[in-house]
Amino acid sequence: MKHNHPRKRVRRHLTVKRTPPGASPGTIAVDPAAPKPKIRVTAYGPEALVEEEVRDLKQLPKYLEKYPVTWVDVIGLGDARTLEELGKIFDLHPLALEDAVHADQRAKVEEYGDQLLFIIARLIKKDERLHSEQISLFVGKNFVISFQERSNDCFAPVGERLRIARGRIRQAGADYLAYALLDAVIDSFFPILEEFGERLERLDDDLNSRTAGRVISQIHDARSELILLRRTMWPHREAVNQLIRDPQRLLGDETRVFLRDCYDNIVQAIELVETYRELCADLRDECLSFVSNRLNEIMKVLTIIATIFMPLSFLASLYGMNFNTGASPWNMPELNWRFGYPFVLAIMVAAVVAMLFFFHRHGWMGKTDAAEEEAED
Amino acid sequence: MKHNHPRKRVRRHLTVKRTPPGASPGTIAVDPAAPKPKIRVTAYGPEALVEEEVRDLKQLPKYLEKYPVTWVDVIGLGDARTLEELGKIFDLHPLALEDAVHADQRAKVEEYGDQLLFIIARLIKKDERLHSEQISLFVGKNFVISFQERSNDCFAPVGERLRIARGRIRQAGADYLAYALLDAVIDSFFPILEEFGERLERLDDDLNSRTAGRVISQIHDARSELILLRRTMWPHREAVNQLIRDPQRLLGDETRVFLRDCYDNIVQAIELVETYRELCADLRDECLSFVSNRLNEIMKVLTIIATIFMPLSFLASLYGMNFNTGASPWNMPELNWRFGYPFVLAIMVAAVVAMLFFFHRHGWMGKTDAAEEEAED
Amino acid sequence: MKHNHPRKRVRRHLTVKRTPPGASPGTIAVDPAAPKPKIRVTAYGPEALVEEEVRDLKQLPKYLEKYPVTWVDVIGLGDARTLEELGKIFDLHPLALEDAVHADQRAKVEEYGDQLLFIIARLIKKDERLHSEQISLFVGKNFVISFQERSNDCFAPVGERLRIARGRIRQAGADYLAYALLDAVIDSFFPILEEFGERLERLDDDLNSRTAGRVISQIHDARSELILLRRTMWPHREAVNQLIRDPQRLLGDETRVFLRDCYDNIVQAIELVETYRELCADLRDECLSFVSNRLNEIMKVLTIIATIFMPLSFLASLYGMNFNTGASPWNMPELNWRFGYPFVLAIMVAAVVAMLFFFHRHGWMGKTDAAEEEAED
Amino acid sequence: MKHNHPRKRVRRHLTVKRTPPGASPGTIAVDPAAPKPKIRVTAYGPEALVEEEVRDLKQLPKYLEKYPVTWVDVIGLGDARTLEELGKIFDLHPLALEDAVHADQRAKVEEYGDQLLFIIARLIKKDERLHSEQISLFVGKNFVISFQERSNDCFAPVGERLRIARGRIRQAGADYLAYALLDAVIDSFFPILEEFGERLERLDDDLNSRTAGRVISQIHDARSELILLRRTMWPHREAVNQLIRDPQRLLGDETRVFLRDCYDNIVQAIELVETYRELCADLRDECLSFVSNRLNEIMKVLTIIATIFMPLSFLASLYGMNFNTGASPWNMPELNWRFGYPFVLAIMVAAVVAMLFFFHRHGWMGKTDAAEEEAED
Amino acid sequence: MKHNHPRKRVRRHLTVKRTPPGASPGTIAVDPAAPKPKIRVTAYGPEALVEEEVRDLKQLPKYLEKYPVTWVDVIGLGDARTLEELGKIFDLHPLALEDAVHADQRAKVEEYGDQLLFIIARLIKKDERLHSEQISLFVGKNFVISFQERSNDCFAPVGERLRIARGRIRQAGADYLAYALLDAVIDSFFPILEEFGERLERLDDDLNSRTAGRVISQIHDARSELILLRRTMWPHREAVNQLIRDPQRLLGDETRVFLRDCYDNIVQAIELVETYRELCADLRDECLSFVSNRLNEIMKVLTIIATIFMPLSFLASLYGMNFNTGASPWNMPELNWRFGYPFVLAIMVAAVVAMLFFFHRHGWMGKTDAAEEEAED
Repeated sequence: MKHNHPRKRVRRHLTVKRTPPGASPGTIAVDPAAPKPKIRVTAYGPEALVEEEVRDLKQLPKYLEKYPVTWVDVIGLGDARTLEELGKIFDLHPLALEDAVHADQRAKVEEYGDQLLFIIARLIKKDERLHSEQISLFVGKNFVISFQERSNDCFAPVGERLRIARGRIRQAGADYLAYALLDAVIDSFFPILEEFGERLERLDDDLNSRTAGRVISQIHDARSELILLRRTMWPHREAVNQLIRDPQRLLGDETRVFLRDCYDNIVQAIELVETYRELCADLRDECLSFVSNRLNEIMKVLTIIATIFMPLSFLASLYGMNFNTGASPWNMPELNWRFGYPFVLAIMVAAVVAMLFFFHRHGWMGKTDAAEEEAED
Repeated sequence: MKHNHPRKRVRRHLTVKRTPPGASPGTIAVDPAAPKPKIRVTAYGPEALVEEEVRDLKQLPKYLEKYPVTWVDVIGLGDARTLEELGKIFDLHPLALEDAVHADQRAKVEEYGDQLLFIIARLIKKDERLHSEQISLFVGKNFVISFQERSNDCFAPVGERLRIARGRIRQAGADYLAYALLDAVIDSFFPILEEFGERLERLDDDLNSRTAGRVISQIHDARSELILLRRTMWPHREAVNQLIRDPQRLLGDETRVFLRDCYDNIVQAIELVETYRELCADLRDECLSFVSNRLNEIMKVLTIIATIFMPLSFLASLYGMNFNTGASPWNMPELNWRFGYPFVLAIMVAAVVAMLFFFHRHGWMGKTDAAEEEAED
Repeated sequence: MKHNHPRKRVRRHLTVKRTPPGASPGTIAVDPAAPKPKIRVTAYGPEALVEEEVRDLKQLPKYLEKYPVTWVDVIGLGDARTLEELGKIFDLHPLALEDAVHADQRAKVEEYGDQLLFIIARLIKKDERLHSEQISLFVGKNFVISFQERSNDCFAPVGERLRIARGRIRQAGADYLAYALLDAVIDSFFPILEEFGERLERLDDDLNSRTAGRVISQIHDARSELILLRRTMWPHREAVNQLIRDPQRLLGDETRVFLRDCYDNIVQAIELVETYRELCADLRDECLSFVSNRLNEIMKVLTIIATIFMPLSFLASLYGMNFNTGASPWNMPELNWRFGYPFVLAIMVAAVVAMLFFFHRHGWMGKTDAAEEEAED
Repeated sequence: MKHNHPRKRVRRHLTVKRTPPGASPGTIAVDPAAPKPKIRVTAYGPEALVEEEVRDLKQLPKYLEKYPVTWVDVIGLGDARTLEELGKIFDLHPLALEDAVHADQRAKVEEYGDQLLFIIARLIKKDERLHSEQISLFVGKNFVISFQERSNDCFAPVGERLRIARGRIRQAGADYLAYALLDAVIDSFFPILEEFGERLERLDDDLNSRTAGRVISQIHDARSELILLRRTMWPHREAVNQLIRDPQRLLGDETRVFLRDCYDNIVQAIELVETYRELCADLRDECLSFVSNRLNEIMKVLTIIATIFMPLSFLASLYGMNFNTGASPWNMPELNWRFGYPFVLAIMVAAVVAMLFFFHRHGWMGKTDAAEEEAED
Repeated sequence: MKHNHPRKRVRRHLTVKRTPPGASPGTIAVDPAAPKPKIRVTAYGPEALVEEEVRDLKQLPKYLEKYPVTWVDVIGLGDARTLEELGKIFDLHPLALEDAVHADQRAKVEEYGDQLLFIIARLIKKDERLHSEQISLFVGKNFVISFQERSNDCFAPVGERLRIARGRIRQAGADYLAYALLDAVIDSFFPILEEFGERLERLDDDLNSRTAGRVISQIHDARSELILLRRTMWPHREAVNQLIRDPQRLLGDETRVFLRDCYDNIVQAIELVETYRELCADLRDECLSFVSNRLNEIMKVLTIIATIFMPLSFLASLYGMNFNTGASPWNMPELNWRFGYPFVLAIMVAAVVAMLFFFHRHGWMGKTDAAEEEAED
């Protein structure tokens, strides 16, 4: 059944993926089903840029020495040893590494020591179902390490901008790179939201008294997804706000201006989600009123039919009685009248006319507003 | 179908217009369909005022030198080069220029450096549909630059006040001009709200059990528009509040007093929107109770008719049975009674009277309150 | 139709009365329909009190010199010149005067300079409809100026207390007088609220399944008025709170203690409004359940009647068939049985008894709880 | 009618008892119906305790001199002179005394001068109806004055603890006594809440489709009481919180620890009220779904009966037509068939079987879940 | 009846277990039904660990002297004397001990003096019903005392980590142990939540128009449990937040980092509860729309049947009238027509066809969306 898909979509997000209770904190419990990590390094300065896939982690320090900014992009979280080694090279806190690997965290920003920021953001994707993937960023003086669950297109434009040195990105430091990556993640919300807006419009256009039942079911699905979207997006607001107020001064003032822009985007996305939720609620209310109206319509037809035919049938049954007209002149003398039958028919016609007049006066005949609309659709 | 228009009205606001994800921030991506910019300069001091349409942007600095206040009004956002040139002359931040061009921003106030305020406000317009247009203001020491998507009447009264030197506007500085423009935008909310109030009153007056279905659909449309209005108006409150607290001291104390007035207006507008939303919710609840009452009325008619005629029809059918009265004295001897038929008729009349008495005692006969109201309408 | 009145009551409050958009701020645009101002001066000290109606505003300064406190009570806002002259004598800010004249402001407190407080409060009145009138107070070192839209009784007790020198009012300064006037306005909320409480109780007492339709409509009216009351009362809270915290020190410590009492009153009034709103919501829910129950009752009667008579009618119709009993012994031999008719009657009685037993077992016979209640009413 | 009592219970709390508008503040307007005050003094130190009923207020100062702590318990507020005399002896502010006498205040804490705290709390009682009584406490260095509307048992355990010197109460100062009295008032909330919990459980246990109508009405009553409870309890939270933060340092640190406990109790009580409100809302929703289900059940029975018997009746009526079989071989030749009657009966049986099969396939036969539950109850 | 269990589950939590009102605070009123305490001591340092069950409390001080950290785990709260003795040895405040024993407290953190933290957390368990148990922790410089109502598995993994010296736990101090225990309690929320998520999914999958009645009842149960879960979980957030901000500096900076992680977990758990509540509300709305749709379906069947057969029956009854065709040529001459019967049959067929066409055009024939879905399920 088609509309069951979204229900299944929700499933993964209801189930909570976590370390077993009581495990020692800071344990990097790798999901055995996760893909093995690929590590891609992009090191650059205003003049030069190298981009390489690295297999031996020991080569990393040399990029750090040679280039103003080094971006280590780790794709896939399926190997504990590689990650621990990375942690040692860059002096990453075990708790942060654990969070980076357990890819079900809320968006957040945490400071570790004086020179390290840890940022979690969530990328929202829609292939056959709506889901979110975790993006973790470690930001230091001259490096950014990004962790992705699997390969995403969302960092491609940033790589492209680095390569062709468009804008200020090659001149700026690691803080600006971190901003650019975070902004790319947050930009990924908007195509999803746009599709949502179009979906709600389609539902609104489709809505009439016949489709109300189906629309209400699709609104239910849409609301489940909006709950998920809101739950995913909401913490980004607090996280970016925290970055802007960051007391470590790891982020330059210029980058802060850009983060303010980023913050505006998140606020706008969250407001859109809230607006969609309200529109969903409104749509559902209208659906329910369509369902009620339809019930009224149905009952009106039934009542009109019953009210017209019950008295007629009674009259017909009355003259179907078998009282013996021969036994007494009081017994149904009408049956032997010359115009008995036409007379009864005339009474019947009069009754029908009276009924129709009654219905007309009460506004039951003719289409109701709702029925008219439906007919015009 | 007439009431579909408002649905389409909503469309544009559900769809999000944005730079493509991953684009370099600060890019002025001009909408090719937007009208080409016209630039109108109004430069004035207490004694003099010039008002000119400017084609060569290089002439602008001379106004700045000659007059205490220069107002550059840019109408139309369709040419990236003109805008970039303006940006260079007045030293506008690329991010701010980008926001001014991408005309789908929330109202906000941002400071750039020490001597520049960037204000976004949204003008609400209703031609055939309700929509909002972005007004961006750059406020410096001795200039105000305003950007409009297309030509609006809303700044005309300000121009008029400048021309005839009414009030303190010609004596005051650029900060007061910025206030006057912002106030003009916020004043544009009230005619829309007033029309809304009248619309709700009309709906309230129209509401009776026959129109409930239509009214509920129009309330749905009204609510969609209110969601839009609230979403548009709400950020202005924060923005003006921020202006009042502005730490840059670009705005004089006197202007701050006027902004407080402006803030009161926004609060009043937002409260009106909230009040309308509550009234809409109340109206819808009353609609639904009308629909329920109508269903009750319909079912009561059906039940009364069925309860009266079913027993009568049964009785008539009973004496329509063909048991052979000749075969046995037990077989329907009533058929041969002298007063069999009058007797049955009497029973029928008695049954009807009993039913009517039963309905009367249960308050089913006579109109209900709701039906009375309807009849009186 | 009677219950339409409250709807009309709402009207004025939905329509927004404002200066035309774009007008110069500080313009005193007098409503031509407003009554001409009458000016009554009450000047007093611990020993003496004069009370006079003043026509020539130039006399005012002499009261200020001679008495510790001067109360200028302006009734009617229909003459711009008088108001402007007052503004000059007492040095009132044009924006504040504009607010005092445009009598549709929210309650608020504003400071102008060091020695002037501007207070707006709203008096709630119920003659034939519920509405509110604006009371504006200018409070200086040794004077209070009050503006009223039209003559109200609400300041009468304060005048009386001044005249008979009851309590501390004659000893205290202008700040205490301002408190006394504000308190008189806020006291005007309570009779309205009390009447509201009684109205809700009456509705609650009246409520039964027959009146549910009417009650629901009256609750709708009550809710519209509560929305209005809340909108009017709410800003007073913030305003009085601001007075208590007033940094100008225009208000003495003793007066502040009394304002705290005043604040408690407003909080209590607002809480009552909220409580009434919740009780309204509860009442409406109970109304709707009465309506539902009534529908159930009606349907039960219909179903019982139909379930009893449909099978009986069928049986009667069956033996009304005209199969030729002479043509074959298989054709309705019952018709010629000796006890055919009594037998069929017995079957019918048995069927009715079985039905009644079925209904009894399902709890359909006998009155439901709701029907019992109704019967007991 | 039994369930009307709770409605009447609400009455008193909807009506507002207040000084007439415009009265001079600080007026002690005694309710003439209130009982005359009895004054009981308990003076104590670690070694000694006297407990006496005092008629001559002039004796009070001697207790203050002789004992570390003096508790003056005033029961009944019906004599203005006694109260004014008390006010003079202990230097109580007239506004506070007015609040103590007008026994309809919200719970609050107010400081008067440096050495006096004024506390209002509300005792919740349920005799035949739920209502609340005001308890006012004046707390000084070495005395506590308590005002009660009428004699309550709630202070008895505190008196007992004083008499038998249990715990630290005799060693501690007036601040601890004030805490003990306040705690006794707040403890009075819990038996009420416990009874409420049991009542909701009973309603939940009783709920089935037959009782839904009655239960919904009782939930309405319960909700009205909860609104009252919440309105009464809520301000205690703020009041106790204010005591804990009290900057006067009239309360010792040790007492503050106990007040924290007291605060926890209030928070727990308020949370219980909120939980009950949510459970009420849930119960009502389930009631409404029972009502809906019952309507569905009723309609299903009606539809099944009608769907089965209408075609049968039609068939029977068909062969009750009086077409002359002699006039033409086309006129109802079935009537003369040998197996005409059995054939028609067979068709009827087949129709019934088909209908039952249709109903079975659509899940209409057999009890629904809801009906099953009902049957099992 | 199966679904009544959850209702009983709620019972215990609605009833409030408390000291009798007016009792002296700090009284350890032991529940006589509670199990007698067993005391298990785990004392450890980086090198050594002893784990013993202690019967003589006098032995405890020697552990404190010998080992850096001593964990006293008290299981069962049924003996006042043991608890008082413990209180004396470790100098625990009587109010805190009272809270530890009265096992119905909200989660909270309290400081007593400079060197003692008192933490209450609640363990959520689901055996045959959902309930919560209180865990109290006293944290000092070099000891942690934990109180459990009965033996729980939740501390087992912490004991295990201590024994096998996994992670940093043996190196760290008492503050880290307290964190580990608190974290174990909070981890106990997640299996419960996970089961809840699966339950909601099952309900969502099961939902169709036949099961709607049952599902709605189960949602009611689920909501009652969610109210309980939320009420239990919510205070943990504030408590842990308070620990993180702890001004006593009893907790080291490193432990604070771990508590931040713990705080994230609680926030996630609370968000899940909120999400589940929203999903429940959505599910219930969909249930109700299924119920409405089903009513519509039922009424449609009834109306179609009635609309088709009522006119047919009338026609049949008409020709069942016994007007004497011999008495006049006007009396039902159709009965003697050659094709009278076929003609009437043709009219009937035509009427049925017309009805079906009418129903088809109005979309009544064929399954509705809802019915389709049901059929596909």
